[in-house]
Amino acid sequence: MNDAFRTLYWQDETLFLIDQTRLPQEEIYVPCKTADEVGRAIVTMIVRGAPAIGVTAAYGVALSALQHREKNSILTDIEMLGKTRPTAVNLFWALDRMKKLVLQNCKAAELVDEAKRIHAEDIECNKAMGQFGQTLVPHGAKILTHCNAGALATAGYGTALGVIYAAHAAGKKVQVFADETRPFLQGSRLTAWELHKNGVPVTLICDNMAGYLMKKEKFDLVIVGADRIAANGDVANKIGTYSVAILAKEHGIPFYVAAPRSTLDLTLKTGEQIVIEERNTREVTQMGNSVLAPAGISVRNPAFDVTPHHLISAIITEKGIVRPPYTRELASC
Amino acid sequence: MNDAFRTLYWQDETLFLIDQTRLPQEEIYVPCKTADEVGRAIVTMIVRGAPAIGVTAAYGVALSALQHREKNSILTDIEMLGKTRPTAVNLFWALDRMKKLVLQNCKAAELVDEAKRIHAEDIECNKAMGQFGQTLVPHGAKILTHCNAGALATAGYGTALGVIYAAHAAGKKVQVFADETRPFLQGSRLTAWELHKNGVPVTLICDNMAGYLMKKEKFDLVIVGADRIAANGDVANKIGTYSVAILAKEHGIPFYVAAPRSTLDLTLKTGEQIVIEERNTREVTQMGNSVLAPAGISVRNPAFDVTPHHLISAIITEKGIVRPPYTRELASC
Repeated sequence: MNDAFRTLYWQDETLFLIDQTRLPQEEIYVPCKTADEVGRAIVTMIVRGAPAIGVTAAYGVALSALQHREKNSILTDIEMLGKTRPTAVNLFWALDRMKKLVLQNCKAAELVDEAKRIHAEDIECNKAMGQFGQTLVPHGAKILTHCNAGALATAGYGTALGVIYAAHAAGKKVQVFADETRPFLQGSRLTAWELHKNGVPVTLICDNMAGYLMKKEKFDLVIVGADRIAANGDVANKIGTYSVAILAKEHGIPFYVAAPRSTLDLTLKTGEQIVIEERNTREVTQMGNSVLAPAGISVRNPAFDVTPHHLISAIITEKGIVRPPYTRELASC
Repeated sequence: MNDAFRTLYWQDETLFLIDQTRLPQEEIYVPCKTADEVGRAIVTMIVRGAPAIGVTAAYGVALSALQHREKNSILTDIEMLGKTRPTAVNLFWALDRMKKLVLQNCKAAELVDEAKRIHAEDIECNKAMGQFGQTLVPHGAKILTHCNAGALATAGYGTALGVIYAAHAAGKKVQVFADETRPFLQGSRLTAWELHKNGVPVTLICDNMAGYLMKKEKFDLVIVGADRIAANGDVANKIGTYSVAILAKEHGIPFYVAAPRSTLDLTLKTGEQIVIEERNTREVTQMGNSVLAPAGISVRNPAFDVTPHHLISAIITEKGIVRPPYTRELASC
C-alpha cells in the first residue's frame, strides 16, 4: 500500500522530502544536503508528522556527519535539530539514537546506515500496527480521522491511515471522513490527497462539522495518530483531537490512537507535562494572498492539545492493541 | 453601541448593504434597487445572519412594490425571496408580515414604512435582549462565541454580540474568544472585525481550538445566536454550534442562545424537522485563489446544525431569559 508517492528518500548522499506545504497542488521533492536545510524543512513544515520528523532528523544527523566529520559539530547540529519542534517526542527519540553512535565515534557511513534503519523500521512498524489495528475496523466502516497520520506523516505508510490502508487492503469497504484540520489544513491538503491517491474513498469536512456528522452519519470509529503519549495514556496530538475525542464519547463512538512505541514518553506521568507548541498566528489569519482577519486583534495558535486517557478506547502500537488501564499496559508493551 | 458602521440602511428608495463577503479587507456598501438584487445579495451572502436576512427581505418586498406596483408581481417576488435560504425562519416571518400588507393592497410607501418598522424593531429588540442577557455576564468574563451573531447579523446591534456589547457598555471588562467558523469565516472576518471596531477585546481561534481553550482558559460562558428555534428549545444555528455546546457541557460552562422571538418556530415540535441547507462545496475547497483540497474527492458543506435543548442553559429573547423546560416557557414568552 502506498506506491503512489514517497514522503522522503535518500539518494546520492541527499535527503529528498516531498514538500508538504505545496500539496495538493504540486508534487515537488526538496533536496536537503545539510543538517541546517533539514532543520529548516522541519520548522517550516515541508515535512511534518511525528514519525516523519524523527526519520528526517536522523538523516539530518547523517548529513551533518557527511559534511563535518567532526564530533562537536555533529553534536551542535543534533542540538539545533532538537529545537525545531517541541511537542513530538519521536524527534528526540531519533536524535538520541543517532547521538549514541556519534558519541561512539562511528563513521559517517555508519550514521547513514542507522538513519536508513530508523527509516525502514518505521515502515515495518507501521505495517505491523496496520495489521493489529485493522481488526478493529468493521466491514463497511465509516471512519473519522483528524489531521494527517498517514504515509506523509511517517516514513511512507502511516499510523492511523496505516490502519485504514490495512483494512482497505484486507478487502474491507471503508469510507473515511477527514477533518480539514485548521489552520495548516493537513486534512484537506494531505489526508484527502493521499487517501484519494491510494484509492480509498474520502469525504472532506470542516473541523466544526464533526459533531453534526457523528450524529447524522453514525461513524463507526475515530482514529488519529499521536505526537507524544504519556505513561498514563494521555495523548498529545494535533490541535482539535481533544475536541473530537469528547464528541466521540458523547456519541458512543470508539476513539482509537495509532502510534509507534517511539511516541511513548514514559518519563512523563501525565499529558499535563507535555509542552504545547504555539505557532505563528499568520497561519490563522492568512491563507495564500487572502487576509482572513482584521489587523490589531489577538490570535491564538496552539498546534497541539492533550487528550486525557479516559477518552481513549485503545492505543494501537506495533506490538498490539493496548487497552486501559494504560499505566500498566504501556509500561510493559 | 456600534456607531462604527451600518449593516444596512435605506436611502433614496435604495437598500444599501455592507458587503460581508469583502470584510474585513474592504468596507463597501452594495446598493439594491430591485427585489432580484436583494435575492442575489442573500444567496451570495453579501448579507447573512438570520435577523439581517429578515430585515433585508422586508426591504426587498418594499423595492418590489416600488418597482412593480402590481400585487401579483410583488407576490412572485415574495416567493422568490422565500427560496433564497432555507434554514433561518426570520426570513419567512418577515416575508409573511410584508405579504399581509400586500394582500390588503397597501401602497408601496406603506410597505416601505413596514420594512422600516421591522428594521427599527430589530434594533430595539436586540437592545432589550442585550439588557436581559448582560445580567448573565460576570465582571471579567471570558466568553466564547461561534459564527457572527452581531451587528452584522442583525439590523445593526446584535443578538449574542448584543449581549456582549451591553455588558461592555455596563462597564464589565470582558474578553471574547471568537471561533473563526469555517468555511465562511464569519468569526474571523466579521465577529473579530466588529468587536475590534467597537473596542471590545477579542481573540481569534480556529474552531478546533475551542475544547483545548475551554480547559486552559476556563471560559465563563458560551453565547451564540440562532437561525431557528423549535418549540422544545432545540436550536438551529451555524454549523459547529452543536459541537461547541457538547464541549461546553463537558467543561461545565453555561451555554446561552440569544435570539429575538421572530426566530421561534413553534410549528416545529423539535429541531429534527428543521431543514439544513447544504451549500456549494467550493466554500470548503477554495479560499480566494488558493485550492485547498485535491480534485475528485467528496466534500460535505452543511451550513447549520441543531443543538438539542438539553445542552442549552438558557435562551435570551427580547422578553427576558427563558430557562428549561422550554416547551412551556417558549410557548408563553
